[in-house]
Amino acid sequence: MPVALHGTGVSRGIALGPARLLQRGGLDIPQYVLPPHLVDEEVERFIAALEAARTQLRAIRQQIPAGTPTDIAAFIDTHLLMLEDATLATVPIELILREGCNAEWALQMQQEALTRVFDQMDDAYLRTRRDDVAHAILRVQQLLLNQNQREAAIAAEAEDGRIIVTDDLSPGELVLLHQHNVAAIVTEHGGPMSHVAILARSLGIPAVVGVHNAWQYIRDGEPVVVDGRQGVLLAGLDAQGAAFYRTRQQQEKRARAQLHRLKDTPTVTADGAAIALFANIELPEDIQAARRVGAAGIGLYRTEFLYMNRSTPPDEDEQYRAYSKVVKAMKGKPVTIRTLDLGADKTADGAPPERGGANPALGLRAVRLCLREPELFRPQLRAILRASTHGTVRLLIPMISTLQEVRQVQELIAEARDDLRRRRQAFAGNIAVGGMIEVPAAAICAEDFARRLDFLSIGTNDLIQYTLAADRLDETINHLYQPLHPAVLRLIHTTLRAGTEAGIPVTMCGEMAGDPLLTRLLLGLGLTEFSVPPPALLEVKRIITASELEPLRRIARKILRQDDMEQSARLLAELNSDD
Amino acid sequence: MPVALHGTGVSRGIALGPARLLQRGGLDIPQYVLPPHLVDEEVERFIAALEAARTQLRAIRQQIPAGTPTDIAAFIDTHLLMLEDATLATVPIELILREGCNAEWALQMQQEALTRVFDQMDDAYLRTRRDDVAHAILRVQQLLLNQNQREAAIAAEAEDGRIIVTDDLSPGELVLLHQHNVAAIVTEHGGPMSHVAILARSLGIPAVVGVHNAWQYIRDGEPVVVDGRQGVLLAGLDAQGAAFYRTRQQQEKRARAQLHRLKDTPTVTADGAAIALFANIELPEDIQAARRVGAAGIGLYRTEFLYMNRSTPPDEDEQYRAYSKVVKAMKGKPVTIRTLDLGADKTADGAPPERGGANPALGLRAVRLCLREPELFRPQLRAILRASTHGTVRLLIPMISTLQEVRQVQELIAEARDDLRRRRQAFAGNIAVGGMIEVPAAAICAEDFARRLDFLSIGTNDLIQYTLAADRLDETINHLYQPLHPAVLRLIHTTLRAGTEAGIPVTMCGEMAGDPLLTRLLLGLGLTEFSVPPPALLEVKRIITASELEPLRRIARKILRQDDMEQSARLLAELNSDD
Repeated sequence: MPVALHGTGVSRGIALGPARLLQRGGLDIPQYVLPPHLVDEEVERFIAALEAARTQLRAIRQQIPAGTPTDIAAFIDTHLLMLEDATLATVPIELILREGCNAEWALQMQQEALTRVFDQMDDAYLRTRRDDVAHAILRVQQLLLNQNQREAAIAAEAEDGRIIVTDDLSPGELVLLHQHNVAAIVTEHGGPMSHVAILARSLGIPAVVGVHNAWQYIRDGEPVVVDGRQGVLLAGLDAQGAAFYRTRQQQEKRARAQLHRLKDTPTVTADGAAIALFANIELPEDIQAARRVGAAGIGLYRTEFLYMNRSTPPDEDEQYRAYSKVVKAMKGKPVTIRTLDLGADKTADGAPPERGGANPALGLRAVRLCLREPELFRPQLRAILRASTHGTVRLLIPMISTLQEVRQVQELIAEARDDLRRRRQAFAGNIAVGGMIEVPAAAICAEDFARRLDFLSIGTNDLIQYTLAADRLDETINHLYQPLHPAVLRLIHTTLRAGTEAGIPVTMCGEMAGDPLLTRLLLGLGLTEFSVPPPALLEVKRIITASELEPLRRIARKILRQDDMEQSARLLAELNSDD
Repeated sequence: MPVALHGTGVSRGIALGPARLLQRGGLDIPQYVLPPHLVDEEVERFIAALEAARTQLRAIRQQIPAGTPTDIAAFIDTHLLMLEDATLATVPIELILREGCNAEWALQMQQEALTRVFDQMDDAYLRTRRDDVAHAILRVQQLLLNQNQREAAIAAEAEDGRIIVTDDLSPGELVLLHQHNVAAIVTEHGGPMSHVAILARSLGIPAVVGVHNAWQYIRDGEPVVVDGRQGVLLAGLDAQGAAFYRTRQQQEKRARAQLHRLKDTPTVTADGAAIALFANIELPEDIQAARRVGAAGIGLYRTEFLYMNRSTPPDEDEQYRAYSKVVKAMKGKPVTIRTLDLGADKTADGAPPERGGANPALGLRAVRLCLREPELFRPQLRAILRASTHGTVRLLIPMISTLQEVRQVQELIAEARDDLRRRRQAFAGNIAVGGMIEVPAAAICAEDFARRLDFLSIGTNDLIQYTLAADRLDETINHLYQPLHPAVLRLIHTTLRAGTEAGIPVTMCGEMAGDPLLTRLLLGLGLTEFSVPPPALLEVKRIITASELEPLRRIARKILRQDDMEQSARLLAELNSDD
């Protein structure tokens, strides 16, 4: 009997092969109090396990084959860094000494404290960093308990062409699976922004996450099909069904190969309009991925990573080095550096948050925090100004909602310039200063902001969240989080028009920009600058180069007038029908 | 030396008189574990104290003089109800039995648990209910510790014309003070929506809250001045200063008397435009206050109170009785009943919330909750339909953001009518169904909603909060919560225009409607239906009757075009300059 288990498709591609069920199972963490004379010994045991975990990770890193995207190594490095950071390397020792508890339990307490911090974060991406901490801690706990056989099991069981069905995977495990040429992965945990999803996309492994109860329906070794675009795991197909998917697999392979040929072609619509296609990045290392797909520049360089998992913010020089690396690597192509977009509740040094408001998303975040704590902001502004000597830099202010904030940032930039002049340090004379349009007030008054800024960038994730008063991470109401809600489309249209009228560029860097199903609608609404995650770039480019603007404008105008999302969805499907 | 201590003026009026400093001081709550054979005795001790507290409250209630607004008694009743509810009457007993702890400590633990629940609520009004719990618990703890002398002290020390300067007041204490004819009150705790503020306004006692460190500057018995409008406590004034305030006091008294004469005059602008001036109410008892000021109807009857401080929601009949009481009392004048506006996080039966989202304000609230739990919603819809036989009822849906929600509510109303028909219970054939415009998406798409609803009601508090992504209860960013932000004014204008075009009325029931400083701006923007707290009604009426629309429209158009809030504030001041 055919079985279809649905999850979220996070990495496209179709795979057919025998299932390999791998279950991690929970680790039983013992808790006991040590006699005082054994406490020092316990600290030694912890330090040894920590060192062993680092050695393991370094070994995995070594095994990464040449030619693997460097962002994979970066994820392993993140775990290594965590195991060196005070949060995981020092705090548990203090707990062992203070409480006299065993090392496994000290790690467990610290993990729970960190989980609470991460759970309060309102950015989906940052919240998934919780999984990194969990994976890093689990590795040490497994070593402490001598239960470190899973990676060995993976190495033994993963064979060419297997489809791995499991509860959860760490980045290290995924690298191992990739080396053994698995055909696809299906996990119970993780979302579209989890590491397993990001890595799978990066490695080109079809992946579906959030598939529950697979153990009830799938037998180990049974032939299954994974469709990473539709987010489905199929079993019990007859010959006809299997043939259907085999044909689709061939088609997708051909399409991917064609896609890659687009890398160096100009991004121009079929009727000749030039479109700018930028990449979003996170870490300086992500530059490789952006360059591999021929990005015209960096439309969003998130700087939060520099501030995470540490107890003091990075100093000006550290920031300067990170930004310069990106700017130099892009060789004159524009690099849009977004200033710190953390909330007061997520200076994630492991300490509990300093009593954030009841609604962190409506609280002290991003530019609000930076203006309230200018000593946090000034080093970043100076670092960005200095890095701008190495290429073309655009400075992007997140979460602006009043002109007053724009003025204050401009004053701080002027002061930063004065500081650098006094210090006789080089900086580019004039960098573009732009604002993120993600608060409804900023979109409604986009024309006012367009007159005072050099460019705008629409952050659709927050814009949708606030416009609909719907936190998309809240499962009870995320059906209201609707990119096609007419209010959202009208605000995007207002912002694009404001840019045109003021003669300044408007980029879109939220998830809508990277969704190929929305590319034509956005073109029709007048968007000319997209900033997307590197893995989505070529598909968006393919659609752009295959589209003529005029008919898109007509349907976009029609969609803009709809009051009914279902009707808009139908019109959109029509728009994408020839794809 | 003159001293001016600033707080928040919460009840207007000027008072001059000697200060009387009253400090509650913290109650030292002991914590100990009882030997098992004394636990039952401790439970008895707790029950006795609880009963004594109820007796005290009943006595205070008896002492309320005839002619005092009935909402005062309602506040005392709230405390009485709390002391009868399982939250305070049963849970502490369970704690004593389970933990073997003393009764004072059991109450303390329960209070802390409740405080956490209340602190997560995102409605300023509901959050202040925390103070009720604290006051009710304190009363029992004082009785348990035989430290119940404060009310006696108040009775002894409060004399005619004294200005009470204190840390905090319970409703019972304020009633006692009122009976002793105090001239004004100044407290350290509490905000504009605290009970002390609401009661003081209701009783006409000038009041300033949030005044810190008064003990450092004011001596007991010293002559002081309180300005309840400006929110200031002054001491050390010279003869000239005192004379200035005495004159202003006389002027205010005359103005108040004149205001009262407006009660029965029609609400018409100086150039003849009729304006509807409704009242917001909370409890059926508030009807008295609404009638005393001659409200044209109830523009917002919040129904949350029925659901608070209890473990099961009120059944249909209980709701029917409450709604009918209001509808009958209004004798045919319209009564706008807003359906349940609670969040999943605030079904405040004392149980910890069921894992609300990270941002309750962006989560499962109001109509979202009602549509997800139709068994909670259906009895309310039936009760409203039944109550509508006694007069004119308008049903108001809070927090709509999509047309889909409107359709779902309309279907549930049709089903409720069918149910009543089957049961052969009477209901009015056709009641008006309206929607709150408080989510930005609803305001942006107001024309779409206006075509499908019988009226709209602008809830400015949430509308401002979401439009600016600024929780006004978050002290770090509430400077961004700006009614004059051009985006807010443009959304109000869009909504009013949508109502005009669709030919349906648009009411405003948020705090902006009751702010006399904004009355003229709102008239100029085209608002014709205000719903305000009863104490603000006559002042708003005075301004309306003294205004001509045409010049207001001109300045409102000018303000609407401003991109600078400071300039808008100047234009607004000009608008109000002759006042």
